[in-house]
Formats: sequence, structure tokens, C-alpha cells
Amino acid sequence: MTDTAKSQASNAMWGGRFAAGPDAIMQAINASIGFDQRLYAQDIRGSRAHAAMLAATGILTHNDAEAIGEGLLTVLSEIERGDFPFSVALEDIHMNVEARLKEIIGEPAGRLHTARSRNDQVATDFRLWVRDQCDAAVSGLRALIGALLAQAESGAGWVMPGFTHLQTAQPVTWGHHMMAYVEMLGRDMGRFADARARMNECPLGAAALAGTSFPIDRHMTAEALGFDRPMANSLDAVSDRDFALEFLAASAICATHLSRLAEELVIWSSAQFRFVAMSDKWSTGSSIMPQKRNPDAAELIRAKIGRILGAAVALFTVMKGLPLAYSKDMQEDKEQVFDAADTLMLALAAMEGMIGDLTVNRDRLEAAASSGFSTATDLADWLVRAAGLPFRDAHHVTGTLVARAEAKGCDLPELSLEEMQAVHPAITSEVFGVLGVHNSVASRQSYGGTAPDQVRAQIARWKQRIG
Amino acid sequence: MTDTAKSQASNAMWGGRFAAGPDAIMQAINASIGFDQRLYAQDIRGSRAHAAMLAATGILTHNDAEAIGEGLLTVLSEIERGDFPFSVALEDIHMNVEARLKEIIGEPAGRLHTARSRNDQVATDFRLWVRDQCDAAVSGLRALIGALLAQAESGAGWVMPGFTHLQTAQPVTWGHHMMAYVEMLGRDMGRFADARARMNECPLGAAALAGTSFPIDRHMTAEALGFDRPMANSLDAVSDRDFALEFLAASAICATHLSRLAEELVIWSSAQFRFVAMSDKWSTGSSIMPQKRNPDAAELIRAKIGRILGAAVALFTVMKGLPLAYSKDMQEDKEQVFDAADTLMLALAAMEGMIGDLTVNRDRLEAAASSGFSTATDLADWLVRAAGLPFRDAHHVTGTLVARAEAKGCDLPELSLEEMQAVHPAITSEVFGVLGVHNSVASRQSYGGTAPDQVRAQIARWKQRIG
Amino acid sequence: MTDTAKSQASNAMWGGRFAAGPDAIMQAINASIGFDQRLYAQDIRGSRAHAAMLAATGILTHNDAEAIGEGLLTVLSEIERGDFPFSVALEDIHMNVEARLKEIIGEPAGRLHTARSRNDQVATDFRLWVRDQCDAAVSGLRALIGALLAQAESGAGWVMPGFTHLQTAQPVTWGHHMMAYVEMLGRDMGRFADARARMNECPLGAAALAGTSFPIDRHMTAEALGFDRPMANSLDAVSDRDFALEFLAASAICATHLSRLAEELVIWSSAQFRFVAMSDKWSTGSSIMPQKRNPDAAELIRAKIGRILGAAVALFTVMKGLPLAYSKDMQEDKEQVFDAADTLMLALAAMEGMIGDLTVNRDRLEAAASSGFSTATDLADWLVRAAGLPFRDAHHVTGTLVARAEAKGCDLPELSLEEMQAVHPAITSEVFGVLGVHNSVASRQSYGGTAPDQVRAQIARWKQRIG
Amino acid sequence: MTDTAKSQASNAMWGGRFAAGPDAIMQAINASIGFDQRLYAQDIRGSRAHAAMLAATGILTHNDAEAIGEGLLTVLSEIERGDFPFSVALEDIHMNVEARLKEIIGEPAGRLHTARSRNDQVATDFRLWVRDQCDAAVSGLRALIGALLAQAESGAGWVMPGFTHLQTAQPVTWGHHMMAYVEMLGRDMGRFADARARMNECPLGAAALAGTSFPIDRHMTAEALGFDRPMANSLDAVSDRDFALEFLAASAICATHLSRLAEELVIWSSAQFRFVAMSDKWSTGSSIMPQKRNPDAAELIRAKIGRILGAAVALFTVMKGLPLAYSKDMQEDKEQVFDAADTLMLALAAMEGMIGDLTVNRDRLEAAASSGFSTATDLADWLVRAAGLPFRDAHHVTGTLVARAEAKGCDLPELSLEEMQAVHPAITSEVFGVLGVHNSVASRQSYGGTAPDQVRAQIARWKQRIG
Repeated sequence: MTDTAKSQASNAMWGGRFAAGPDAIMQAINASIGFDQRLYAQDIRGSRAHAAMLAATGILTHNDAEAIGEGLLTVLSEIERGDFPFSVALEDIHMNVEARLKEIIGEPAGRLHTARSRNDQVATDFRLWVRDQCDAAVSGLRALIGALLAQAESGAGWVMPGFTHLQTAQPVTWGHHMMAYVEMLGRDMGRFADARARMNECPLGAAALAGTSFPIDRHMTAEALGFDRPMANSLDAVSDRDFALEFLAASAICATHLSRLAEELVIWSSAQFRFVAMSDKWSTGSSIMPQKRNPDAAELIRAKIGRILGAAVALFTVMKGLPLAYSKDMQEDKEQVFDAADTLMLALAAMEGMIGDLTVNRDRLEAAASSGFSTATDLADWLVRAAGLPFRDAHHVTGTLVARAEAKGCDLPELSLEEMQAVHPAITSEVFGVLGVHNSVASRQSYGGTAPDQVRAQIARWKQRIG
Repeated sequence: MTDTAKSQASNAMWGGRFAAGPDAIMQAINASIGFDQRLYAQDIRGSRAHAAMLAATGILTHNDAEAIGEGLLTVLSEIERGDFPFSVALEDIHMNVEARLKEIIGEPAGRLHTARSRNDQVATDFRLWVRDQCDAAVSGLRALIGALLAQAESGAGWVMPGFTHLQTAQPVTWGHHMMAYVEMLGRDMGRFADARARMNECPLGAAALAGTSFPIDRHMTAEALGFDRPMANSLDAVSDRDFALEFLAASAICATHLSRLAEELVIWSSAQFRFVAMSDKWSTGSSIMPQKRNPDAAELIRAKIGRILGAAVALFTVMKGLPLAYSKDMQEDKEQVFDAADTLMLALAAMEGMIGDLTVNRDRLEAAASSGFSTATDLADWLVRAAGLPFRDAHHVTGTLVARAEAKGCDLPELSLEEMQAVHPAITSEVFGVLGVHNSVASRQSYGGTAPDQVRAQIARWKQRIG
Repeated sequence: MTDTAKSQASNAMWGGRFAAGPDAIMQAINASIGFDQRLYAQDIRGSRAHAAMLAATGILTHNDAEAIGEGLLTVLSEIERGDFPFSVALEDIHMNVEARLKEIIGEPAGRLHTARSRNDQVATDFRLWVRDQCDAAVSGLRALIGALLAQAESGAGWVMPGFTHLQTAQPVTWGHHMMAYVEMLGRDMGRFADARARMNECPLGAAALAGTSFPIDRHMTAEALGFDRPMANSLDAVSDRDFALEFLAASAICATHLSRLAEELVIWSSAQFRFVAMSDKWSTGSSIMPQKRNPDAAELIRAKIGRILGAAVALFTVMKGLPLAYSKDMQEDKEQVFDAADTLMLALAAMEGMIGDLTVNRDRLEAAASSGFSTATDLADWLVRAAGLPFRDAHHVTGTLVARAEAKGCDLPELSLEEMQAVHPAITSEVFGVLGVHNSVASRQSYGGTAPDQVRAQIARWKQRIG
Repeated sequence: MTDTAKSQASNAMWGGRFAAGPDAIMQAINASIGFDQRLYAQDIRGSRAHAAMLAATGILTHNDAEAIGEGLLTVLSEIERGDFPFSVALEDIHMNVEARLKEIIGEPAGRLHTARSRNDQVATDFRLWVRDQCDAAVSGLRALIGALLAQAESGAGWVMPGFTHLQTAQPVTWGHHMMAYVEMLGRDMGRFADARARMNECPLGAAALAGTSFPIDRHMTAEALGFDRPMANSLDAVSDRDFALEFLAASAICATHLSRLAEELVIWSSAQFRFVAMSDKWSTGSSIMPQKRNPDAAELIRAKIGRILGAAVALFTVMKGLPLAYSKDMQEDKEQVFDAADTLMLALAAMEGMIGDLTVNRDRLEAAASSGFSTATDLADWLVRAAGLPFRDAHHVTGTLVARAEAKGCDLPELSLEEMQAVHPAITSEVFGVLGVHNSVASRQSYGGTAPDQVRAQIARWKQRIG
């Protein structure tokens, strides 16, 4: 992947000039075929579009273009059948494909690279690949959201503790908790969609860096490859990798969301919590402790943000301070993006599977929600709303009541009306209506609140949105 | 910034319960007023919208709401005048404002926090702040693009070397090179705009995490604060910071672009290149080497990607694996974003200034573009186009001609027609038309190519776009 | 912080040459006095050593050197009293100190900078500062290790669950768990000690980058400042910041360790675990839920790895690809290191306080350790050791026994001998000796194992080591 | 890699219990054999040491131990011959080796895992591997230092510009510049040596996490594997990966150094600098621009810091906040370290090759050093030293003289004595002795300065040090 002038048919041509030839170390550090062969389909698609355009604009004869197009399909099928002999000496996927094309169709193969360079070729291939991954991420997110919606629907009314600082704060519903992740992942979908739209411009025709004097039609190739338009500056087209950085950033944000859900699954699976049980599919066991289920998949998903963030840091660091246009440093872009994309898709699929198979211990959830004076806030709000106390007084009264219950070793609903009235005379029996966890969650009717019907409304909205 | 139940008027209230009280270390690690006072305007704006809504929905009397609204304006003016006594004991900006409001208006101040928590309050304040920074980034980018367009317009036809691997590859124009950055920065604008649109949902009314039983109108506060809508899940509203991560990621990509331009400016300012000269404003000198100009501003801008990427890594690491909902870890979000935003805006302003003041050494650019056989590609393309040679033969002929020129110690246009025809008889005198650098750039007429009229077309498009 | 040639007494001197003068943006991006004033003590110490050496080598008169030495002490006391007028126009701490020295002692101040440059000056100051932070980290670690040893000593024999995957695996002791962190932090001490030893070479005398023609004695200044020797290459001395990177890396590893302990404290403080209770000092509460204790300090410590890792990434990115020698980019080194050092020291102090104040719920620990068939491994080992079964058969038998106990709803020790012998006849009543958690931990006598006397032996070793 | 209790011979055993069995996604995310097969030699070495110890302590019969030892050698040779059938179903290298051992030697294979767990096994294997990489890094560094010393020796007296801000500041020697990197890389050697010493403790015998009740001899296995001692806490032994983080940090610092040298090589190879020419081995060319040499290897080395820093960030993020002891997240440690180590070793080897083959353009270096009034500092120093001017006056006089030379279009040595004396009468003809670049560098006799004999002294010291 260097400038256009490099020998097209064979790097062996350097041999004539370079006395020594690249030795093993140079080949190891320089060759990219070990990883960029993943771009084969994009490379062939791009070349076919280029050849068709060259014919349409009269730069190539239709015969040559047809031979090239057919020959490329042959190469494609060879690769997909697994019997393509990748050559490290040919360095990269572009040279491998072109050299094979030459073997198949002979001389016309040499005309394919007219008005093109490896610089715009690789930029186009890579953009096509990353664009596909944006789509894959959206699909993976949609499937995971589907699994979360199913969980949310089942447990729209199940009560569980809402935590802050991992301390019980207020009761919420299981459905509400699941839907929090639906919102996060929904924004992730938006990020991938925005990234896709922004990157959907075609570098092809930028040539080495300056454009070309051949009368090419860049709009035609852009359209053929599904791009919205050609890129408007040829230097930019071959020099920037911001589309890859944006994809990595969106992936890292998504992986952060997944790490949070995974952490919750690990904690919830502990013997102390027992909120959920992983299915056998997503956990590993022990031959001598058959009851033991290690949440391996959740732990691995939790870890994946490290890998993806690392990939992002790597590419940012590579791109830092590079002068225009193409520098060989940029060859480091692919492995990072390949690995991050594979990692994200796998994590999304594993999380979807785990959520789909999750057994929720509804009783444990409700019991946990009911302890720890979790409705103290409801009591205080009732004192403001129904008994007309100022906010701060309501808090003071509530604190006193909680302290009494704690001293007595009971929970708030177990205090008698008399005990309550002894603290503040304005309390009536109506107060018991807000002290139970089901009443508590039902009362959170504010838009986006945890009340089951609010949750169900959001589920309905999301089902419509993701189809 | 913890759950809603925390004492509203004064943290001293803990004193009654916590035997020991937070000592110096705890205060140092726990208090955020040292940095979150930057949110004062957002905090007061949010509180005013909340109070107005509480009155409109009948939760607060209009008298109380008015007193609160007026009192908050008084607090605002005290802070802006610089005579507000920030208190570390009150921990954060929210408590500082509320405590002062209590001093000014008395009892009604205690009602402001009805149906609200510090969790949704801080999420709202921070979102408003980051949203402003998206706008600031777009403004800064627009100004810098303006400076680049001015440079591009001046030098739309100036010829300079187009580099790959920092080796001369083909001639391009100064205007084209400037416009490459315009494209990059234009995408940066898009990223900030997308981030802004995505984050423009209002957390207010999510309360601690579950929503509230008060009959609030979240759409009203959302609208009053310029949000598109309230957030649809209260747990999500207080738990996620993806909007901050997205802002940091967009900033890091933008800073990467700036680092590349800065690197070029540093290299171009060297005695060996002398392509440009920094103005005195943006460089530092030496009392004994008066000709020396150190490109300090460019170097500092080049470095800023480190700072911004570091901030992004910091917040990603903080958020990794946090269970819902609010955890105190999230208090680490602000300093990173504050610093990254300040850094980005400063770097944009400095770059704008530097580009605006840059003196371009047009002669050096052209001389550099003309050496190194930079039009060899043009020659090869001519052989294909005009003389009908196959691509590979054209390359072979060109290589031979370059080798002859190199041996003779001259450049390509200085070879005689006879010398050329000795290598290949199909060469005619017409070839000299493509060997000069001005002819070369003029010939790159492909869309987005370096031909001056292509460059001018893009300048015109961008001037229209940024107004 | 640029090369030596820069005006020493006042940057205003540029004014004569630079028509425009640095404006507000340039000052904002360029001036470092806002943060590098923290180096004042190191700067003055370094200057005093330099002046004394200049006198000893005859480069300065003793009168001048004495005036300089005294004058610098005056500056020092002004700064420490807080009445030193720092000037942004003078850019950095070095110029601020020198300009003030000039005001105090007049002309001889101008001789101080002989045979020195800001480049070696700042490198020396910064190295002295970072060296101090290595010592501070070692002190902070020693104190925290002390707190952990005290906890370990109290609970050397308390039984708790040893987790893998946050699932109960085998019983361990509280002391053993505490000692795991002692080992980690002990290695952290080693890292800071190694970093200190490696950085303890003196840059002073490297001058701008080439050394000097004055007959200076670099060994004398190195010794005066507590360095082991002068740095052996003047270019290296002013160009590298690997000592800062190494400090940041050691800090990040240490902060990773702290984040793990903090995570455990957060989980252990949950209502579901209740293994420990934070003291009031290190948690925050709620006015209406008085029983609630949010582990704020632990959460903030957990988050600090983000901040420190971010600082490391920032400086790595800044240093990437910088040509020698000094570039202004390197001015970005200080804020990152300052913030990371402050953060680490605060986190160490807070963790020490928290561990010291921790209340351990011994009963909960033991109950948790006793459930979940945590001694299944002991049973299997016994079958190998005492009953002579092959390892795999022993595992099979154990699995069957656990399954029976699970089906019966009891734990392993509650199975009768008959029930056991029905599974495998070789089992004798001796087996009950290994099924209790106390017996289990007592049996782990391998070196470094969890047996209480093994733990006590390690405590004793560590007490001796840290004095 | 999970706790010891997992079935040793075959994961198929889970099948009996787990109804569904791990499906493709779980296998893809969970299995590590795809990468951890690189640990085969370490795994077998560790198992052999373990078996020998089990026999020595009477836990295993000598016959069994011998069978195991022999069988493992057979497995080793199968792997090294390339005909070992790695099985993904067996998940990791440990299970693959053990299952094959079972096929070869039958029943005794099942006894190997006595008093051991996969947790301590993998920790031991990985530590052995990383320890080897520390040694490899030291070797690679030593070889590169050798190449730099050879360059330094050749050019100990060649004059080149010493840059600050990429502006000529003062003349230095080529040898001095090379030796700056020798110093940096020498410290890198120290970091790898320190890391190696710190990690050289043996986890084997920690078992799952608690140690074991078998009477093992951990000192014996530690010694057999070349460790200094067994690790002193079994929980720590299986839980921490700080040794890997320290290796990654040392690698990242080293790669930062390499990136700086690589950047210099790229800049120096440009047509504008032409300080050096890469050999054909380490550059790529162009078929039509035969004079063009793209410094691909240097660019790729420059980029590698991104990859290594990314790996470090990945593992830090993975380890953040993990509770003890083993969590599956930690399986992510290996790929990052493998890739970073491979990358570092390759970059060191490539840099060594490049430096060894570098052609230095001595004339260009000297010409560049002689321009730009690079000896202005020497003049100022002479005025202080020989003419007795105060430092600031000397600077003023020098500035005036430079300005006159600049106006006249000549360099400093070309001013006549009369012209000089017109600026200051104390100037004598002796001044010309300091104005030439050779005199300048020769005068920098301070320890570590650029004077050729200083440089040669350092070369001699380093040759002795690295043998």
C-alpha cells in the first residue's frame, strides 16, 4: 500500500533495482497479505466497478473491461473456494488479486490499474469493509435489543432494587432496568448509522493523491459501489482514516455499555445475590461442584471493552502527527479495526444469547427490593404531597421513622399508625398505600419512570422502532 | 452527586449521624466544588426551569416559584460578579447554589428540590454544558475552515510537492492541500452536530433513578431547556455518560486532524523545507539568534491530541463495568471533559490564528515540486493516453527515461526529444506539455483532483456551506 | 521552556523583535506558569547548586554566587509565604524566579544562567519533582501495607469464601485475602524504587542540548542535588521523558491494584454481601435512609485508575514520534504527571484510611464460606490422598456426593457416612475432618497457602520488611 | 482457564450436566486454544517440573512420574514437528496437552493434575513466556545498541545540526546524536531486566487459589523452572497480571524511543533534508521513479508504538476493578502480550537492520550545521568567557552581530574583525576560533557534551558494558 507508481504486476520488479531485496525481517514488517486478505471481496468489487467505468468512459475497450470483470469473478470464486494461493512475496491483497488476474486473462490485466493507485484502492476497500461492519453492528444491536425487550416484557411488573453505589435506593421494575440498556444500545445504533452515513463517500479516483488526468467518472464508480458521492478532495481521500476512528469510538462506547450489563450479570449470578441464573450454554462448570456455574461469557464480554478501547488508542496513536498524504504507518489501521469489529460482533451475539437464556429469580428480586427501607423516599414524597409538609421537614420525619423501624428491627410498613403519628400527627393510614414496593413502582408515573405502564409504553415504542 | 435522599440544605446534617465526620482526605477525594462550579449557569438555568414547571403543574405555588426564580437570578449575578463564597464543605455546585438560595429567600428554597434529585440534576447540568461545547467546537471549526479557505483561495494555483512517505510523489496545489484539511474538519463539524443531536434529551425528572410520583411535566422542562424531548428511561438518564464519551471521541478525532496539520507546519518551517514562515505571534524567538523562529504554537497543538485522547481513555476506563444506576465513580466525568473541551477550543483558535498569519514561500514550494522527477507519472499516463502504450510498458519506458535524466543530472523536461525517442519512438514533442508541474496539476481534472479549477470549485462550495 | 538562547531576564525583549507580540491565545497555549509553579522549590534548589558549582569552578566570583544563593532563598521564602507575584507574561517558573532574583540582587542575577539553558534546567527540576513522588508513593504504599497487615493479623484465622468468577470456590482466610494485596502493593513499591534509581541521574549541565564550553563540574551539581551521577549524553538529557512515563506506568499498575480492592469493598458493602461495613468517615449517607452508607471513597478510588491511565496515554501520545532534542510538545509532560501523582497519593491515603476503619462481619464471612459445597475440592483431595483413588475417579465420586447433597438440600458435612459409603465404600469417618471450612483452610499448608499459620508467617515477614 | 475443579481430561464431561452444551458463539468467545497454543513449551516444561516434584515428595510414584515426563516429551516433539491435532473442543493448551498425554500413557496422565489447578498452571506458563520475552527484548536492544555504536564510532566527529523545535540550534556530532539513543535504549534494557527480576517468582502450587493440602515442595518446582522463589501468597499468584502490565509498559516506553528515531529517519530521508539514505533492504521503490525510496520500515516502526500502547491500555482496562481471584476476563491477557512482544521484537530487529545499513550524507549534515548562525551561542559564551561581558550583554552583542550578518547575507565567520569590533571593541581575532562548527563541537567538553572525545569516551564505556 504505497504510491501508485509501484510496480503493478509483481514486486519482483524491484529486484532489478534493489541489490539486496527485502529480507525476512522487512517482509515480516512490511507485508500485509496476512491480514488484508480479508478485503478480497471489497477489492474485487471495487476493481470491477473501476473497470466498468473505464469502459464506459472509453479509457478501456469493452472487450478488455469484460475480460477483467470475468477474470475477477474467477479470482473471487477461487478465494471463496479456498484454493487461492496467497503469496507473501506479493505483499498485499491488491497485488495478489492483480497478479492472479494476469495469469488468468493475460495482458488486459495490466490495464485495470489505469487511473487508479493502490492508495485510493485500499482506501476504497477499507471503507467498504468498515461500512459493512457498521451495518453488522446495527444488526447485532437490533437482535440484542430484541432479547432485552423480551426480558422487559416478561418482567415489566417484577420489582427489584434500584441501586445507587450498589446500595438499594428505590424499587424499580425488571422491565425498567432492561429498558435502560435498550436506550443505551439504541443510541449505539444511532452512532453506527451516523458513522456509516459520514463515511459513505468514495475515495476511488483520487489515484495516488492528486487525482488523474484520465477522463474518469468518479460519480459512476461511487454509485456502483453504493456510496452517496465521490470524496471531494483527492489528498483527503487517501490520507484520512477518521472513518475508522469513528467506527472504533462507536464500538468502544457500545462495548462500555455491554461491560456494564455484563458486570451486573456477574454480580447478580453470585451466591449472595442470586438474582439471575445463567443458562448452561453461557457458563462453565466444575466436575466436582456440579452446582457451580461460572459466568464465563459475561466475564469475557465485560473484558472486551479493553480490547476495543486498546484498538482505538492504537489507531489514534498511529495517526497522530502524520503528514499528508499516504504514509506507511497507516497500514496499521486494518488489524485494529478487524479485531475490534470481530470482538464487538461476537460480544453482541453472546450477550443476545445470554439475555435470551437468562433465568430471573423473581422472588429474590422482590425480596431484595423490599428490604433496606427502599420506600423511604416514597414516604417522604407522600408527606410533601398528601400531608403538605415542606420538603426538608418531610425528610426529617422520614429519617426519624426509618431510625425507629431500624431500632425495632422491622421495615417501614410494619410500623403501626400510632408509632407513625407519634412522630408526626399529620400521617394517616393512607400512608401505607405508598410503603409497599409494588405501590412504590406503580406510583412512578412520570414520563420514563419505572411504573409498569410507563415501561410497557416504552417497550411498545421500541418494538415499533426496531420492527 | 449521589442519590436524592442526601441532605439538601447542608451536608452538615450528616454530622448528626456520622460520628466522625469526613476528614481532610475524604473531603479532598469527595468534594467536587473545585471543578463543578463551572456548571453554575447550567445548574441555575435547570433549577429555574424546574421551578417554573413545578408551579405550572401545581406542585409549587406560584409565589414560591417566583421567589425561587428571582433568588436564583440573584445567585447567578453573585457568581458572575465573582463574589459568591464557594464552600468546600457544601461539596458541589448544586449544594452551594441551594444553600445560598436558602439564605436569600428562606423557606421556599427547600421546596425547589421537590420531584428532583442530585442525580438527574447533575446529569442535566452536565448535558447542557457538553451541548454548549458541541456548539463551541462547531464555531471554532467554522472559523478555522474560514482561515483555510482564505489560504486555499490565495494559493489555488500555487504548485507544491504532494508527498507520500514524506517523499515527493506528484505535484499538487497549495489550495488543494489546504482543502484536504477543510474536508477533514468539515466531517469533524458533522460529528459534533450528530453528538449534539443525540445528547439533546433531557434527564430532568428522572429523579434519583426511578422517576417520581409527583405529577411533573418532563416535556415542559425539556422544552424550556432547549432539549428535543425528555429521556425515555429514568435509570438510563442518571446512569449513562455516553454523550460525554462521544464528545471526547469527536474531540480526539478532530485533535488528530489538527496534529497532522501542526506536524506539517513544524516540518515546513524547518530550515531544510522553508515552505512557510510562522508569524511572530505564533512562534518564539531567541535573543541571540534573531532569525530563529520556534513554531511553539504548532508544536503545542500537535501535542494536544495526547491530552484529549488521555481524557477519553480516562472516562472509558471509569465507566467500564459500572453497574447501574449512579455510582460515585461517575464524578470523574467532569474534569476530563472540561479539560478536553478547553484544550480543543484553544487548539482550534490557535490553529486558526496561525493559518491566518502564515506566510507561504511560493517559490520554495514550486522549486520543491519541480525536482525529484515529480511528473514521471504524468509522463507514463501520457504514454498510455496519447501514445497508446499498455500501462506496464508505459511504466517501463518512464523508468528508463528517469534513469537517463538522473544519470545526466537533469530533470525530465530537460531531456531532448531525441533522447526520449531513443527510448521509445512513439514519443512526440507533445510530451513536453505534460512534464511541467503547472501542466501536471492542471491536468488532474478528475472530480476532487488537484487542478486549480477543481480546487476553486470546492472552495466555492465550502464558502456557501459555512456561510 | 525552549532553547537556551531565549532572553533570560524578560520575555518582553521579544517585543523589540516581534512586531505583534503574543496575544491572548498564544499566551494561553504557551505559558506554563499556571502549572509549573509547582516546581519552584526544585528550581531554586537546582539554581543554588548550579551557582555554587559555578563559583567552585571559577566561572562565577564567590561574591556573585553568594548573592545569588541568598537572593534565591529570599525568593523561596516569598513563594512559600504566598506573596510572590507570579507573572503570566514571564511564562514559566524559571523566568519568574530569575526575574525576581534580578529585582532583589541586581546585575549578578544575569550571571546565574551561565553554562545552563532552560532545557537542562526544566529537565532537572522535573526529575527532582518526580523523584520526590517516587518516594511519596513508597511512603503511601508502606502506610497502606501497614493497614492491611493490621487487618490480616486480626483476621488471620477468619474464614471467608475464596472466589473465582465471583462464585464461591474454596474457603480462604480474611488474612490471606488481605495479604494478597500486600504482595501486589509490595511489588508496586519495587517498581517505584526501580524507577527512582533509574531516573536518578542529573541533566544539569547538558545546557541547550550540546553541553557547554564552560569548565563546569557536572559531578558536583549531580551530587549536590542527590543524583547518583550526571547523565552521560546531553541530547538525551534534554530530550527524553521516559522517567515520567515510567512513573506513570508504575502509578497505573498500582492504581489497578487499588481499583480491584475498591471493587471488592463496594461489592462486600452491598446489602446482599454485607461482608464489611465502611466507617462513617469514608462513606456518605442519606437524610431519609439513615442506615444507608454509600461507599463513595471506595468508588472514587476505583475510578482513579481511569485518570492515571489517561495521563499515561496522554504523555505516551505526546512523546510519540518527536524528533530530538527539545520540542515544545514536551511542555505537556507536567500537568499529566502532577495530576497522576496527586491522584495516586490521595487514593493511597484514602484506601489506608478506609482499610484501617473497616468493620469486618466475621459471621457473614464464615457463613458464606460454609455454603456452596466450598470444600468439595478438599473431599476430592482426601479421596486421592487417604483413599488412594486416582484423581479423576476422586472427582467423579465427589461430584456424585455433591449432587446428592444438593438434591437433599443439605451441605456436604451433613451427609451421613452411610450415604457417602453408598457412593464409594472406601470412605471412612475420617472424611469429616476435611469437610469443615476451618479444617479446609488449616489443611492448605503449602508455602503461600491460606492456612492461618502460613498467613501469620507472611505477616511476620512483611512486618520485618516494612519496619 | 478457570478453577481447578473443571474436568481435567475432557470438557465433554460437562455434557453430562449441561443440557445444551456450549454452542458456536460460546466456543468462539470462550476457547483460547487459538492463541494459547503458543504456551506449549512452557506448559510442558511446567508440567514436567510439577511431576518430578510430585514424585520427589512421594505424592506420585516414580513410575508414574517417569511415564508422565516421557509422555510430555512425546507431546512436545509432536507439537514441534507440527503434527499435533489441536482441538478447539478441548478449549486451551493445557487440556490439549493433557488429553493427548492420556492417549499416550493412559491412566497415570490423570494423576499429573494432583495438587495443581489450571489457575496456577496458566499463571506459571504465562510468566515463563513473558520472562523469555524480557530476555528477548534485552537481546534485541543489545543488538540495536551495537548498530548505533557502530554508527556513532564512524561519525564521532561528523558535524550535524542539533535541533530544538526542528530548528537548528547548535552544532552537534552525528556520534553524539546516535549515542543519545544508546542511552535511551540502555534504560529500556534496565526496565526489562527489572521487570524480569520482579516477575521471577513461581505461582505453581498456588492451586486454584488457596494452596493445597498435598505436601508439595514449591521451592523445588520454582528452582526447576528457573524462578528465584515461589510466590508468597496463593491468591495473589493466580489473580494478578502486573508482570504482564509491567512488560507492556516497558515495551511501550521502548517503542516510544523507537518511534522518535524512526521519525528522524523519515524526516532525514526527505528530499529537503537528505541527511541519510535508507538501504534498498529497508525501503520500497517505484517502477517509474527509480530514484524514489520510501522509508517504509521506518514508518512502520514509528507506528508500532500505537499497537503496543493499545495493548497496554487493553490489559489495564481488562484488569480494572476485577475482584480476586481468577476471573475469566483475565483470559484476555495473552493475545495483547503476544502481539506486543512480537511487535517489539520485530521493530527492534528492523531498526537494527536499518541503522546498520544507513548511508549518512556527511556533507549535507555539515552544510546544514554550518548555516543558520548555529554558533551564535558559542560567540556569546566567548564574549562572557574571554571578553568578560556579563551574560546578558553578551547576548545583546551577539544578537546585533547576527542581525548584521543576516542583513549582509553572510554567516557569522564571514563578518570581518572590524565589523565585529564596531559592535563591541572587546572582540579580538581570537573569536574566529569559536565560530566554526568544528571548533564549536570540540569546545563542548563538559561531561556528556558533544565534543568528539567526550562522545568517544561514551562509546568506549558502552562497548564495555554490552560486551
